[in-house]
Amino acid sequence: MINVLVWNEYLHERMYEGVGRIYPRGIHGCIAEFLGRCDDMNVKTVTLEDEDDALSDEVLSETDVLIWWGHMAHDKVSNETVDRVVRHINGGMGFIPLHSAHHSKVMKKLCGTTCNLGWRNDDKERIWTVSPMHPIAQGIPEHFELPHEEMYSEPFDIPNPDEVVFMGWFAGGEVFRSGVTFTRGGRIFYFQPGHEEYPTYHNETVQRVIINAVRWAAPVTRAHRCIPVENRKRLPE
Amino acid sequence: MINVLVWNEYLHERMYEGVGRIYPRGIHGCIAEFLGRCDDMNVKTVTLEDEDDALSDEVLSETDVLIWWGHMAHDKVSNETVDRVVRHINGGMGFIPLHSAHHSKVMKKLCGTTCNLGWRNDDKERIWTVSPMHPIAQGIPEHFELPHEEMYSEPFDIPNPDEVVFMGWFAGGEVFRSGVTFTRGGRIFYFQPGHEEYPTYHNETVQRVIINAVRWAAPVTRAHRCIPVENRKRLPE
Amino acid sequence: MINVLVWNEYLHERMYEGVGRIYPRGIHGCIAEFLGRCDDMNVKTVTLEDEDDALSDEVLSETDVLIWWGHMAHDKVSNETVDRVVRHINGGMGFIPLHSAHHSKVMKKLCGTTCNLGWRNDDKERIWTVSPMHPIAQGIPEHFELPHEEMYSEPFDIPNPDEVVFMGWFAGGEVFRSGVTFTRGGRIFYFQPGHEEYPTYHNETVQRVIINAVRWAAPVTRAHRCIPVENRKRLPE
Amino acid sequence: MINVLVWNEYLHERMYEGVGRIYPRGIHGCIAEFLGRCDDMNVKTVTLEDEDDALSDEVLSETDVLIWWGHMAHDKVSNETVDRVVRHINGGMGFIPLHSAHHSKVMKKLCGTTCNLGWRNDDKERIWTVSPMHPIAQGIPEHFELPHEEMYSEPFDIPNPDEVVFMGWFAGGEVFRSGVTFTRGGRIFYFQPGHEEYPTYHNETVQRVIINAVRWAAPVTRAHRCIPVENRKRLPE
Repeated sequence: MINVLVWNEYLHERMYEGVGRIYPRGIHGCIAEFLGRCDDMNVKTVTLEDEDDALSDEVLSETDVLIWWGHMAHDKVSNETVDRVVRHINGGMGFIPLHSAHHSKVMKKLCGTTCNLGWRNDDKERIWTVSPMHPIAQGIPEHFELPHEEMYSEPFDIPNPDEVVFMGWFAGGEVFRSGVTFTRGGRIFYFQPGHEEYPTYHNETVQRVIINAVRWAAPVTRAHRCIPVENRKRLPE
Repeated sequence: MINVLVWNEYLHERMYEGVGRIYPRGIHGCIAEFLGRCDDMNVKTVTLEDEDDALSDEVLSETDVLIWWGHMAHDKVSNETVDRVVRHINGGMGFIPLHSAHHSKVMKKLCGTTCNLGWRNDDKERIWTVSPMHPIAQGIPEHFELPHEEMYSEPFDIPNPDEVVFMGWFAGGEVFRSGVTFTRGGRIFYFQPGHEEYPTYHNETVQRVIINAVRWAAPVTRAHRCIPVENRKRLPE
Repeated sequence: MINVLVWNEYLHERMYEGVGRIYPRGIHGCIAEFLGRCDDMNVKTVTLEDEDDALSDEVLSETDVLIWWGHMAHDKVSNETVDRVVRHINGGMGFIPLHSAHHSKVMKKLCGTTCNLGWRNDDKERIWTVSPMHPIAQGIPEHFELPHEEMYSEPFDIPNPDEVVFMGWFAGGEVFRSGVTFTRGGRIFYFQPGHEEYPTYHNETVQRVIINAVRWAAPVTRAHRCIPVENRKRLPE
Repeated sequence: MINVLVWNEYLHERMYEGVGRIYPRGIHGCIAEFLGRCDDMNVKTVTLEDEDDALSDEVLSETDVLIWWGHMAHDKVSNETVDRVVRHINGGMGFIPLHSAHHSKVMKKLCGTTCNLGWRNDDKERIWTVSPMHPIAQGIPEHFELPHEEMYSEPFDIPNPDEVVFMGWFAGGEVFRSGVTFTRGGRIFYFQPGHEEYPTYHNETVQRVIINAVRWAAPVTRAHRCIPVENRKRLPE
């Protein structure tokens, strides 16, 4: 069983009626629901409102893959929590930042870059599968469309990713590396779609991508600790 | 001085009046002309019609960067020539395959993949600079347009490139990794624009990309040989 | 179930008494035996002596992961077979070249480089796990020793690998990237240990690496074809 | 001209007589001296003792490549300085962390990992040139020895580097990725040799590596700013 934890800021859904109508149980609730239908996953959710210990060492030790959605309140996440989450990723936990989580403190700390990009509200996006044999692309068609999505454009200030799995085309004229992987101890998959004003996480292809990504990011065995720094006084020779 | 050799199939320009009007001295002639204006480059050209020894070991030994344009006659290039060219790239020579040279024998041999892609004639392309600080992107705007270009689309069957420098957006709805780098001993830059029916190589931004790429691909010093296989009977210890 | 096919040259074992004593059923027999104990694997073997159709399109279509051991007879494998094998790897089949298979035609064709290296007979090797959280490193200690192994040294003329999983230290004074991954459609893992004169494939840690590698290289679903080249006359837009 | 700034903690040289004898003008003084003999470099130095504005925005804006040596006082560098330095690297400035700077705040922030490793005092190291055609390897022999160096061993907790240029062999039995490159806007080269108790930076081959690295890391043109985050209300289309 893969233990998945879905973290969501959970603000837009309560502040804006339109968003709340799309995600009555929050974005985390929607994601937890479709992941929860997978026989190989145990899914829990947590939101910004919960106490800090919602992402305590104990909780994170029991998490195989952490999904992250945040937007307006990145700064509300404490540096201590960010350090703790990054430490667990360095120790092997999978991490899937979604959409505006490109600017989350955790993602920026893992990347060492600004993660800046261009953006514009409401465009049509067509997502192309660049690496059709990648485990995250299993069952995903060569291309699929999101009739309404926030436009994110290059240049996207990230390190050279391990793999580009998906690329986005926008009707307004831009392109974006919409699905990219990194390794920082644990495996990381950033996926661009998911603006709160559109029903993106109700899209079955998007759901399939996230299900695939959870399975891909799950550590085969969980190390529960990072690579140590050690004085090795005893020589192997 | 960087010794540049421009190889061109040189068939379309002579077979089709329209192409010949755009490139009266051949695509190679056009490329050699704008490269030749660079003070740090010695430029020569060679075409399929020349004898095999036009790409002899002697010629290749004096070449720092080889530019390659081919389309309808990939199979006319002998396997011996391909092996020789690849050996010199493995030994440090830079290589810049352009446009339909994605399907050249040399490019496929360097990649170990089919280099297949989707295509369609005559679309509008907008090229985005994904890695604005890359040497090949120096002086290139964030994005620029080619009003007419052949559409090349993902999935593009290449190995994970070292770097994605440019990405293409097509009005018809596709995306493409339009400028990518590889290393195979020498440095390789594949650049997608350059269909023979459009005046792409007269475009000053395209010219600047190719000029930058030549400087980037030129070996600091030319090894003139590949990494050897050697029986090392003498131990370092 | 993962369908594994173990290809072995199967010459040294029959020509040299010492080698035959170590691998009485051939290197392929030894590998097939320990893989065969895995509940999730169907293992078959094939040797150079078998007819060409031992690696026919039909056989390869039913193969998820192909393991390859060869040394003195790389040239005896026909170019047609090599092309067929590479095509299936490009279509998603996993590939695990072992030891001297670095110089197999298939490996060189996938890499686009010479795959040259330095070598010397009989040294002590210590293998270090560089990427301890990689699926191929599951259960492998931080380092382990092979008291007798052929020394392979850098520089190793391969493309920049996707990941370096293991690195080798040799008592004679050399280092080597002993376990590296590539992607060429299918996933590739090259693993250096396995000189025929030593009982390397009887080592349980080496066996565990190969078992892990098979699971890692197995395609989630098998595409059975490469990315196509297609004229896309119908616009997505 | 390349503007190089050498930052050094400058503590060991003044606290320990033995270190001071090796580097009477500090490690920074030694590095500045051999770099200063290059016609294409302007070299300045700065130490921890200098005021914070020794790494002010103004100073960093005029720096093409920043070299960093630190060990016992990583925590004495303020987070504000670290953020400023990283911002300039993201904007294109080259960065060369040396030896124990693997644990500097700047390096860890760029990597998003712990940068942990194993270590032991005083061993013999042999450095192997893994990528002999890389610009940083120009003029460097296939391997060279440091009779006394601090042992640093794998696993080294860094992201998958862009390139492995050098690998280290230690007489005590360990291996290490001793020279690796990353890109975070600017180009980064980490080089492991340089323990303060040994005259490593007086070694001419080590000096040549650092000279090469400065030339490689120098931005072709300096952007002076990171990739922005921008609301792009005007459509390209």
